[in-house]
Amino acid sequence: MSEMLYEGKAKKIFTTDDEQVVLVQYKDSATAFNGQKKATITGKGRLNNEITSLLFLKLKEQGIDSHFIKRVSETEQLVKKVTIIPLEVVVRNVAAGTLSNRLGIEEGKELSTPLVEFYLKDDALGDPLVTVDHILELKAATVKELEILKNKALEINTILSSFFNELGIRLIDFKLEFGKDNEGQILLADEISPDTCRLWDKETNEKLDKDVFRRDLGSLTEAYETILAKLGGHQHV
Amino acid sequence: MSEMLYEGKAKKIFTTDDEQVVLVQYKDSATAFNGQKKATITGKGRLNNEITSLLFLKLKEQGIDSHFIKRVSETEQLVKKVTIIPLEVVVRNVAAGTLSNRLGIEEGKELSTPLVEFYLKDDALGDPLVTVDHILELKAATVKELEILKNKALEINTILSSFFNELGIRLIDFKLEFGKDNEGQILLADEISPDTCRLWDKETNEKLDKDVFRRDLGSLTEAYETILAKLGGHQHV
Repeated sequence: MSEMLYEGKAKKIFTTDDEQVVLVQYKDSATAFNGQKKATITGKGRLNNEITSLLFLKLKEQGIDSHFIKRVSETEQLVKKVTIIPLEVVVRNVAAGTLSNRLGIEEGKELSTPLVEFYLKDDALGDPLVTVDHILELKAATVKELEILKNKALEINTILSSFFNELGIRLIDFKLEFGKDNEGQILLADEISPDTCRLWDKETNEKLDKDVFRRDLGSLTEAYETILAKLGGHQHV
Repeated sequence: MSEMLYEGKAKKIFTTDDEQVVLVQYKDSATAFNGQKKATITGKGRLNNEITSLLFLKLKEQGIDSHFIKRVSETEQLVKKVTIIPLEVVVRNVAAGTLSNRLGIEEGKELSTPLVEFYLKDDALGDPLVTVDHILELKAATVKELEILKNKALEINTILSSFFNELGIRLIDFKLEFGKDNEGQILLADEISPDTCRLWDKETNEKLDKDVFRRDLGSLTEAYETILAKLGGHQHV
């Protein structure tokens, strides 16, 4: 008997027969601005499920362990059960979005070095930016864990930037989440998809990510299909 | 001939005959919420000028150098000319204000350790909270300078917390600014007053600072006179 453990904005999580394994079901819902903008977009769940699976496999090849086990249907994947660390880890290579707005750095400006930010996962507070001292005060993670998160995030950035670059795509920024398995090991978790990355065409700077939805720039599924095709996934054209 | 170099929300700065010295004139204006709430409060300039002078002298006794030279009139003081580092350095002992609102920590909760935050001094951006990586990217300060700012801020916190405690006042949080003199030395600058500190009566937790204005809690000058009197300054009752 499968039981729903959690329903988020983009995914549902179900129990499986194995206590250490859960099923992630990707939904067709798109949300932005902390849930203030919403839509149902047919195909989005399938696209993010497949893109995430391909990227987790790619990272695994390069030595980055994640919670990912295998994709089991168009919209579902099995993952190791982890306890999510309540931080969003954001890596930025180029200024965009909230970084540009908050600090007045022009969107598209290359940063002098990849920048890692932590945001507290708390919908009611609007996922605020937090400093290391805030995180320690809130006991959201320890100094040692933060070091691991930052180093892993930068390592993942190196791998994914180079991988996307080969495919003609610029990895502008992305958000990661991490979790701890039952042995306390920190694993990459959640998803890596155009919902959680900014991906721009290398030649045209065309946006191929959720900004298409946030900013009403055209067809979200077309953009996501472009990414999936470049990654060598199944195409539904 | 004295020339106005700068006019801010609470102070004007004028040249003097000495190129390395400027005159600070404290205004009677009160502003809050990044200038959205404004008022003229007679006596505020005099109070903040005297309180700041007394606190800079107190810190000097304890080995903390500041730009302060001397108070020259009810509303004016002479200070060493410095180039302000564009960061507000906030030290917090107890959760209040934006920390409580942003992170959902109840106002009045003692923090486990004094917390230092940096905010970018930029009115147009609303003085956003910044992380160390943001500061380095913006070149607002170097790693070494940030270390100096943080250590000085914590040292000042130790001195002022103990000093106010003896006077029956809890130092909840405060904002500092620092500047560099013409030899590149980092000096405490700006002001330290009930405009830039949260000060609560130790027995009653009555607010004796700018929150009286921000939150319409009563007479601002009465609160500031209370602080001045406790500091042993001139009373105008």
